[in-house]
Amino acid sequence: MRIAPLFALALFATPLWAGADGLTATGDLGLVVERATGSLLLIDRSDHAAVARIEGLGDLSHASLTYSPDERFAYVFGRDGGLTKVDLLTRTIVARTVQAGNSIGGAISDDGKLVAVSNYEPGGVKVFDAETLALVADIPAEGKTIGLVDVPGRRFAWTVWDSGDAFLGDFSGTEPQIVTLGNAGKNPFDAVLTDDAHTYLIGLFGEKGVTAFDLWDESPAPEKFLTDYGKTGEDMPVYKMPHLQGWAFTEGQYALPAVGRHELLWVDRASQKTVATTAMHGQPVFVIAQPASPFVWVNFATPLNDVVQVVDSRSHEVVATLTPGKAVLHMEFAPRGAEVWISSRDDNKILIYDTRTREKIGEIAAQAPSGIFFTARAHRTGL
Amino acid sequence: MRIAPLFALALFATPLWAGADGLTATGDLGLVVERATGSLLLIDRSDHAAVARIEGLGDLSHASLTYSPDERFAYVFGRDGGLTKVDLLTRTIVARTVQAGNSIGGAISDDGKLVAVSNYEPGGVKVFDAETLALVADIPAEGKTIGLVDVPGRRFAWTVWDSGDAFLGDFSGTEPQIVTLGNAGKNPFDAVLTDDAHTYLIGLFGEKGVTAFDLWDESPAPEKFLTDYGKTGEDMPVYKMPHLQGWAFTEGQYALPAVGRHELLWVDRASQKTVATTAMHGQPVFVIAQPASPFVWVNFATPLNDVVQVVDSRSHEVVATLTPGKAVLHMEFAPRGAEVWISSRDDNKILIYDTRTREKIGEIAAQAPSGIFFTARAHRTGL
Repeated sequence: MRIAPLFALALFATPLWAGADGLTATGDLGLVVERATGSLLLIDRSDHAAVARIEGLGDLSHASLTYSPDERFAYVFGRDGGLTKVDLLTRTIVARTVQAGNSIGGAISDDGKLVAVSNYEPGGVKVFDAETLALVADIPAEGKTIGLVDVPGRRFAWTVWDSGDAFLGDFSGTEPQIVTLGNAGKNPFDAVLTDDAHTYLIGLFGEKGVTAFDLWDESPAPEKFLTDYGKTGEDMPVYKMPHLQGWAFTEGQYALPAVGRHELLWVDRASQKTVATTAMHGQPVFVIAQPASPFVWVNFATPLNDVVQVVDSRSHEVVATLTPGKAVLHMEFAPRGAEVWISSRDDNKILIYDTRTREKIGEIAAQAPSGIFFTARAHRTGL
Repeated sequence: MRIAPLFALALFATPLWAGADGLTATGDLGLVVERATGSLLLIDRSDHAAVARIEGLGDLSHASLTYSPDERFAYVFGRDGGLTKVDLLTRTIVARTVQAGNSIGGAISDDGKLVAVSNYEPGGVKVFDAETLALVADIPAEGKTIGLVDVPGRRFAWTVWDSGDAFLGDFSGTEPQIVTLGNAGKNPFDAVLTDDAHTYLIGLFGEKGVTAFDLWDESPAPEKFLTDYGKTGEDMPVYKMPHLQGWAFTEGQYALPAVGRHELLWVDRASQKTVATTAMHGQPVFVIAQPASPFVWVNFATPLNDVVQVVDSRSHEVVATLTPGKAVLHMEFAPRGAEVWISSRDDNKILIYDTRTREKIGEIAAQAPSGIFFTARAHRTGL
């Protein structure tokens, strides 16, 4: 039942797959990145099913995507600089532009009008009309841009790896207004915005520490903390840089992946002091809060990436260790937290777990799946 | 352009109104309660437009509604005990049951399978299959039930006005498991769940104070605070009981409407101490946090209900006073906070404001509008 419709229905360009009445809603859909084949798998969260495959998206290694406010269109950011607009209802590519040589994610403005892409080669940020993908603004940078996030008021923030400078761009007027927030430090590798759009957090690679900017402040200043955070001579090799987008914010704390260590760090949000560390199975990659719960779920870098651990943010203790499959690359929660969907690249499967029983309740075949993205992301800031 | 399609398109039962391709997504839709006429106005958030009117919903005074996870269906809780399921795509009523004599709101389970209704007459909670509206469970109570909320794990919490007891019902197994959380105090009038599903807060009318239950605890115990909260002999008459669903949670604080006073109370979430009060234009009714911002927006009880004030949760100062229209009953934010939609009952209008400039950017005609509900609510806990 889960495989057959995939191919049978691929023949149709209309949404007849949706049901007897030929109608479909978009609130419970999602896309899975199939990195090896450059394709996307359209999934139905309620039905625990794959309903279509969309092909021809280019190089999807390290790809991410974001959604339009009506949850109809996805904007896919490929590693090859491709920006592709996909229609979830017709299940087709409706626009595509190869806008740079090497890009690393993007974001959509709070009003859904603009899509911004963060580029490595050449460095900088390009901003596109979300409707047509026409270029609206081209902001050069003195190097690779990282950590691009949407900020309320049709704004975006980003940081430059080479110079360490962080920027805030306002695209609400006729001309973009770009201001320098300040210097974050040496070689920032990723950045993230808290879900209240209050704090822009930037992880450093060239020195130890994390730099925070208060975006609610009229004149934000860099504030460095966790100055023992990062790689040291005694550490193990870093198999994979952690994703800061995986930072969890729970119980007044940040839960951070230690770089190069088998450890999770808990930082008090108000004092910016480390309050606890948790010994983990491997080097954490994604640390994601289970919505409406005290728990964070963690996956790990190769070669220990067949395990997922669950940690209680109150006790900072590991409360469950699961082995969902080989090469777990990503986890995505149902927006109200009832389920988590886990991609096992080397088992070619998506595993679905009930978050309360922590038991597997379903699985879906997928080709080397990596990122999983539900449409509910359309309604969240900073993703 | 905004009025004409309303009547022309009411002739169609198919979603041809959606656009040239006959398809529509549901992520940016919403419903406005038209209380005097027992109708719902279907609105398109992106287009700033009303697209259809759905009639025949009975008594919609004090009505609220919730959405299915796919954002296709609304469950409307009418004051007359009517529970109505509305399809946003076909714009029709697909099921309706008059399940009690007098009801006061409801909720949908985190997995979207069950809809629970809180009843006054006879008191108790009834639980229905979300697909068919068939009765699944009938939980009697020793009086009127108030403050019904969804709790993760296919659970609901509620409180009884007459006895003061609070309950947690687990509907994940074959038989419902109902446990008493404890006694909240004398005559609880409303309750609310924090967005992380951590704290169930119950406002008292028969005595001063607010009672909190920690729902993350295995055995939650009642914890009373703000014991000077409530009506005193010196206070003005209470023109309208504030809605606790309007309690805002921001910057580690609860922002509460003072009962019977022209005041907003700020309570530290960790210590449960009052940290500030803000003098306001009138008696607050809804106190709603603007997403991804430091601001809360407040409307007021009659006769001072033509004003909306904006308060900064850092300084606790009023930063803006707006006069959107006569009899402002409700405010609903776009999920990422770019706009707020405000219902002006006596002007028969919905006013749309840009939250950054705080200027009006649109309006929509509606018949005596009260509650505004965007489909993004489908993805939030405790609504």
